[in-house]
Amino acid sequence: MQTVIEKKGYDPAQNADNGNRFLTGNGYMGVRGTPCEFGPEGMAAVNLAGIYHQKGDAWREPLNAPNPLYFEAEGASLAADAGNILSHALSLDIADGTFHRETAFSLPGGVLHIAQERFCSMAQVHLLAQRVTLRASGSLSVSLRAGIDSRVWDIHGPHYDRIDFAREDGVIVADAVTDDGKTVCAALRLCTDEPCAFSGGLLSLTAGLRGGEVYAYEFIAAIYTSADCADPRGAALRAVQESPGYDALLAQQRSAWNSLWDDARVIIDGDPRAEFAVNYSLYHLMSIAPRHARDLSVPARGLSGQTYKGAIFWDTEMFMLDFYLGAMPQVAASTLRYRIATLPGAKKKAAEYGLSGAFYAWESQEGGREGCSDYNVTDVFTGRPMRTFFRDKQIHISAAVVYGLKKYFERTGDDGLMREGGAQVILECARFYMSLMTKRILSDTYDLCDVVGPDEYHERVCNNAYTNEMARMTLRTACSLCPQYATDAHPDELAAFADAAGHLKRQQPDPQTGVIEQFDGYFALEDASVDAVRARLKDPREYWGGAYGVAAHTQVIKQADVIALLYMLGGYDRSVTEANYDYYEPRTEHGSSLSACMYALCACMIGRPEEAYPLFLKSAEADIQGGGKQWAGLVYIGGTHPAAAGGAYMVLLFGFLGLRFEGDGFSLHPCLPKGWTRVSMNVWHRGTRRRIVCEALPS
Amino acid sequence: MQTVIEKKGYDPAQNADNGNRFLTGNGYMGVRGTPCEFGPEGMAAVNLAGIYHQKGDAWREPLNAPNPLYFEAEGASLAADAGNILSHALSLDIADGTFHRETAFSLPGGVLHIAQERFCSMAQVHLLAQRVTLRASGSLSVSLRAGIDSRVWDIHGPHYDRIDFAREDGVIVADAVTDDGKTVCAALRLCTDEPCAFSGGLLSLTAGLRGGEVYAYEFIAAIYTSADCADPRGAALRAVQESPGYDALLAQQRSAWNSLWDDARVIIDGDPRAEFAVNYSLYHLMSIAPRHARDLSVPARGLSGQTYKGAIFWDTEMFMLDFYLGAMPQVAASTLRYRIATLPGAKKKAAEYGLSGAFYAWESQEGGREGCSDYNVTDVFTGRPMRTFFRDKQIHISAAVVYGLKKYFERTGDDGLMREGGAQVILECARFYMSLMTKRILSDTYDLCDVVGPDEYHERVCNNAYTNEMARMTLRTACSLCPQYATDAHPDELAAFADAAGHLKRQQPDPQTGVIEQFDGYFALEDASVDAVRARLKDPREYWGGAYGVAAHTQVIKQADVIALLYMLGGYDRSVTEANYDYYEPRTEHGSSLSACMYALCACMIGRPEEAYPLFLKSAEADIQGGGKQWAGLVYIGGTHPAAAGGAYMVLLFGFLGLRFEGDGFSLHPCLPKGWTRVSMNVWHRGTRRRIVCEALPS
Repeated sequence: MQTVIEKKGYDPAQNADNGNRFLTGNGYMGVRGTPCEFGPEGMAAVNLAGIYHQKGDAWREPLNAPNPLYFEAEGASLAADAGNILSHALSLDIADGTFHRETAFSLPGGVLHIAQERFCSMAQVHLLAQRVTLRASGSLSVSLRAGIDSRVWDIHGPHYDRIDFAREDGVIVADAVTDDGKTVCAALRLCTDEPCAFSGGLLSLTAGLRGGEVYAYEFIAAIYTSADCADPRGAALRAVQESPGYDALLAQQRSAWNSLWDDARVIIDGDPRAEFAVNYSLYHLMSIAPRHARDLSVPARGLSGQTYKGAIFWDTEMFMLDFYLGAMPQVAASTLRYRIATLPGAKKKAAEYGLSGAFYAWESQEGGREGCSDYNVTDVFTGRPMRTFFRDKQIHISAAVVYGLKKYFERTGDDGLMREGGAQVILECARFYMSLMTKRILSDTYDLCDVVGPDEYHERVCNNAYTNEMARMTLRTACSLCPQYATDAHPDELAAFADAAGHLKRQQPDPQTGVIEQFDGYFALEDASVDAVRARLKDPREYWGGAYGVAAHTQVIKQADVIALLYMLGGYDRSVTEANYDYYEPRTEHGSSLSACMYALCACMIGRPEEAYPLFLKSAEADIQGGGKQWAGLVYIGGTHPAAAGGAYMVLLFGFLGLRFEGDGFSLHPCLPKGWTRVSMNVWHRGTRRRIVCEALPS
Repeated sequence: MQTVIEKKGYDPAQNADNGNRFLTGNGYMGVRGTPCEFGPEGMAAVNLAGIYHQKGDAWREPLNAPNPLYFEAEGASLAADAGNILSHALSLDIADGTFHRETAFSLPGGVLHIAQERFCSMAQVHLLAQRVTLRASGSLSVSLRAGIDSRVWDIHGPHYDRIDFAREDGVIVADAVTDDGKTVCAALRLCTDEPCAFSGGLLSLTAGLRGGEVYAYEFIAAIYTSADCADPRGAALRAVQESPGYDALLAQQRSAWNSLWDDARVIIDGDPRAEFAVNYSLYHLMSIAPRHARDLSVPARGLSGQTYKGAIFWDTEMFMLDFYLGAMPQVAASTLRYRIATLPGAKKKAAEYGLSGAFYAWESQEGGREGCSDYNVTDVFTGRPMRTFFRDKQIHISAAVVYGLKKYFERTGDDGLMREGGAQVILECARFYMSLMTKRILSDTYDLCDVVGPDEYHERVCNNAYTNEMARMTLRTACSLCPQYATDAHPDELAAFADAAGHLKRQQPDPQTGVIEQFDGYFALEDASVDAVRARLKDPREYWGGAYGVAAHTQVIKQADVIALLYMLGGYDRSVTEANYDYYEPRTEHGSSLSACMYALCACMIGRPEEAYPLFLKSAEADIQGGGKQWAGLVYIGGTHPAAAGGAYMVLLFGFLGLRFEGDGFSLHPCLPKGWTRVSMNVWHRGTRRRIVCEALPS
C-alpha cells in the first residue's frame, strides 16, 4: 500500500503548502516540511505544543523553538534560488514519519547532490534527528554552515528577548528567553571531523568532497522548555548526550510508528487514492497527538505553525475526537482532561461577560486562556482590524466540550473523567446557558439571542438552530449525569435545567418543506447563489462575513450549520435530513475545512455515497492538495487541517461503513462508494480493540 | 430689526447651501433659493409636501413639481457661468418670505441687469409668484426663454414617466404623471406682448431692450396634485386664471406673514445677531408648517429637497413641536393628527417584525409608510450599501410620538386629540414596548436589547438609557391616560404596563461620579477624544458609525443621548445633570444638528449660559452658516435643519428664559447670556396667547 507522498521540482510559491504537506511531528513538536537551509522567509519552524507568549499588544501565539537542524552548503541553496537547481524532490513516508529531500545543484566544479532525512522521534518526543548527505559528481570544496538557526519564524513576534548560544563537549546549546521568563532550549549533537568555527549557534567548515563519495552529517537534537522542567537546558543537553545514534533512533522511530499504525491503519481495497488520503490524514492526527501529556489538547492547525494562535478550538471535540477515541483513547482522554483542567479559565471568561458557569475560550491556550481577540479579521479596504464576534458570541463552544465529555463516557464506558471533574464541567456549561437564556416578557419561549453559529458569516443572530440544540443537549446531559457525578448539583437547579430545555426555542423543520431555518429570519435573506455572491467580491482576500461582507445578507453560508446539527445530534427523520441537505448544500461556500465532512456524513445518512465521496476526498486530501483559504481579510490562516482529517475518518467510519455503537457492541450499515470492495480497520471501543471488516456485495 | 439676509458674489460651490439658505415656502411647497435660470444641475426644485413616489427599487422620496418659474436670458446665465458676471446678490426677507436676486451681466451690446423677486403665497398655498425685471445699460436684443421647466431635479428619479405641456388661453400647463398614476400639475400665467414660440413648456421670444428702461415679466403659477383633488389640472388652471396680479398677491403675502410674525416674533435687545438667527429659524419653521392641512407633518429636511426622503422623523415631536405649540398650535395638532392617522402603518410595521402594537416608521411617509431602507449609508471604500439599523432598531421613535401627544395634551389642556385616537396611539405604543421587552430567564430585570439610541454611531446596544426611559414614560403615560380615553385598554393590561415599567432596567447615575452609562458596556469602550477619532478617518466622507466606523468602538458619540434624556424627561438632580454634561460634552461629535440644542439646554439647567450660547447659535444659525454634514458615506444629506431651528427656540424659551408651565400659568427662571438686556415674545398656552417679557437685571 502507498505510504509515500512526493513533490518533484522547486516552486517557491509552494513553500508554504509544502511546509504543511510534509510536516513531521510527535505531539510535543511539529517540524514544517522545509529544506534544511530554509529560515523564516521559507517558513521553517519547530512548532511547540502548549507553550505560548504574547509580544506587547500583538496576538498571543505559541513559541517556536530555534531550529537545531539547520544546514546550508554555499552555492547550493533553494532559499537563495540562484538558478542552479538541476532537480529537486520532497517526500514524506507516513509509515515512519520521515521527511526526505533530494536536490541536485550545478556548482562551478560539478554537480552537488544534497539529501536530507529527518524525523521527530515518536519514541522520545523531545528528540529530533536528521541526516544530511552530500555527494559530488567531481571533487568540490564546499563551505558549509550547520547548527541551531537563531532566526526563529514568528508571526507576531519576535518572542525572544535574547537567544544565548554555547558549545559544550561538541554539543551546541541555544537558550531562548522571553520577556515573561519562558525559556526554550535546543541542544544539538552534530559530529564532524573537519575543523570548524563556531558563531551564533552555527558551525562553519569547508568540506572537501571527492567525486562519487557520500558524506553524511548526523544531527541529534533535543528541545526542552521551562514548561517541561526546571532545568530545560540541562535536560536538553542530557537528552542529546544520552541519545543513541541516528540509525538506532530511526529504528526506534519505525517501531513506534508501527505500533501506532497497528491501531490506526485503514485498508480500502479498490481505491488506493482514498486509502492513501485517509491514512495520510491519520498520519497527521497521530503526529500532533499529545501522547506524552496527561491534559494537553490539539490545536486547530495542529503543530504546523502559529496560525490560529496555536489554540484549541471546538475542532478537537467535534471533528478529531472520534479518531482519537477509535485509535488513541488515551489521547482522547488527554484532550478532555485539558478541558477539565481549564474549567477555571472558562468560569473566569463567563464572569467577565457577567454570566455564570463556564464559557470556554473560543481559541483556548494554556490554562484555558482566551487567545481570541475582539478583532480577528483585517479589512482589506481600510487595513483596519474588524470587530468580530467569535470570542464573545460563538457560545456553542461550551456545548462542544460537553459533547466531547459525553461521547467519551459513552464510547469508553469509563466514568473516570466524569469523576475527575468532567461532570462539574457539564454542570458549569449548563449554568452558562441558563444565565444567557432570555425570553420576551410576554412569551414562554426561551431564546438564545445575539449569537454566532458554526456559520460565522452571519453574526449576531437569534436562535441559531445548531446552538440551541447543543445548549439543550447540555442542559439534558447535566440532568442525566450530574446527579451521580457532580456533587454540588442541587435537584432544584437540575429541575430548572430540565424546564429550560423544554422551553428553549427549537427551529422546527418547516411543515411543508422539511427545511430547518438556520436562525430567526434566515429565510428572509436574499437567496443568491454562492457564485453570484463570490462575483461580488472586489478583492479575493476580503472577508465574506462581518457586518457588510458579501455573504452576510444572503443565504450563502460558510460551512455546515444545520447540517452539522443533523449529523452531530441526529434524531431527525431521513426526509428532514434529505430536505436540509438539498437546501443547504448549494448555499454553502465550504469556506471552512470543517464543512465538507458534515455534508458527506449527511449524504451517507440519506444513501448518497456518490455525493459524499468528493466531499470525503476534499476532507481527506485537504493537506495533500494544499491551497484552500490562506487568508481571512489580511490575516494569514494557512496550516494543516487536522479537523478535516478527523472529518474524513468520521465519514469513513460513520458514513461509508455506517458504524453504530450499541452498548459494548456495534453494527455496520454500509454505504460504500463505487469501486470499494473491502474496508478493514481497527477501532477501540469500551476498552477493547475491535476489528472491523466490511466487504461490498458483488454487484 | 434685521429681517434680510444677503449673499453677494457668485460662487458655484455655494449653490447647494444657498438653495437651502434662501428657501421660500408655505407648508404646501418649498422653493429652493436658486436663480430663475437654474435647472437640476443647480438643484432648483419646487418641493412638495406629503406626496411620494418610488422609482423601481430606488429610495422612495417626495415628488418635485416641474418648475413654473423658469426664466433665462441668452448670454446672461449664472448656470452657464460664461465669465461675464459683473455682480450678483441673493437675498431673502424673512418679514414677508420674498426671495430676491440681482445680477449684472456684461453682454456684447452693454450691461444687462436681471432682478428677480419670488415668493410662495402664504395666503393661497397653491400659488407661486415671481417678477423678473430686465434693465440694460444700452439697447440690447436678448433671446429669452421662460415657462415651465421640464427638467425636474430628482435624487432617485426620474419619477415622471411623462410630462405633457399645453398652452391654453395664455396659460402654460404641465401635467406630470408617475408610473403609479400620481399626477402633479403646474400652471403658469405669464403675460408678454412680444410674439412667442412655445415648445416643451417654454416660451421663446426676443426682447428688444432700450437702454435704461425696465422690463418686467410677471409669473403667476399654481401647483395641484392628484393628492389634492380629482382634477389637479383644472384646479391649477383655475387658480392662475382667478388669481389677482403680482402686486395684489404680494400685498396678501405681506399681510399673511405679518399675522404669522405677530405670534412668533422674538425680540432680543442687546444681541441683534442672536435675534436675527432666532427669527430666521422661526421663518423656516413657519415656511414649512402645514397650515393648510389637517393631518400633515413636517419632514426632517423641511421642504428643501428630497434628502432624508422627505420623511417625518422624531425631529418633529422632539425638536419642532415646542415652537408649533408656542406659535402655531393648529400646526402642532396637524403633526400629531398625522401620527394618529398613520397608526395603521405603525401597527403594520410592528407586525412585520413579529411585534405587537405600533412601531412608527423611522422615516415616515404618507400613510405612515416606512421610507427608511435597511441600507442607508454607502461605504466610501467599496461603494456598497451598508446595512444600517435605523429602521428596525431605533425603537425610541414610538415613544417620541407618545411624548408629543402627551406634551400637546398638557400644553394645550385640550383632550381633543386624545379622544380622536391619540390615546389609542399611546396604548399601541405601550403594547409595542411590551412585546419587545425581554428578560434573562434567571433575572427579574427587563431589558430592551439590540437597539439603536439617538447616538446612531453605536448600533445594536442593550438598554440604551434614553430609550429605556422613553419606553418607561410610554408605559406610564398609557397607564394614566388610557383608562379615560382608550376604550379597548383592559385594566389587566394596564397593570402589566405598570409592572413592566417598574422592572425595566434603569441606567442609574454612577454612585461615585453621577454619570449615567449610555448603554450596557459603554464605559468599557475606548475613551478616545473626538479629535483622535476624527484623525483616524481615511476619507472625510466615511461613516463614523456602523460596525467598523471610527467611533463605533469608542466612547465618542454622534449626538446628545443621555443629555437628551436629562432634558427631555427631566427629574434628575442638578448634580447629575452637571456630571453628565461634563462627561458627555467632550465625547460628542455633534454630528447631528439635533445635538447642540440639547447640550445648550442642559448647560442652562446647570447655570452655564455662556457655555450654552455658542451651542444655541450653532443651532439657530445652522442654515445661515450652511456647510455642516452634507454626506453620510456617499449619500447626500444636505438641506435645511428645522429641528435645529426648533432646538434654538427651545434653548431660548426653556433655557435662557427658563420658562416653566405650571397649570394654566407659567414662570420664568432666566439665565440670560451676557449682553442680553431684554427678551420679549408671545407664547400660546392653554388656548391663550401670552406675552413674555424678560429683562436682565442691571449688572
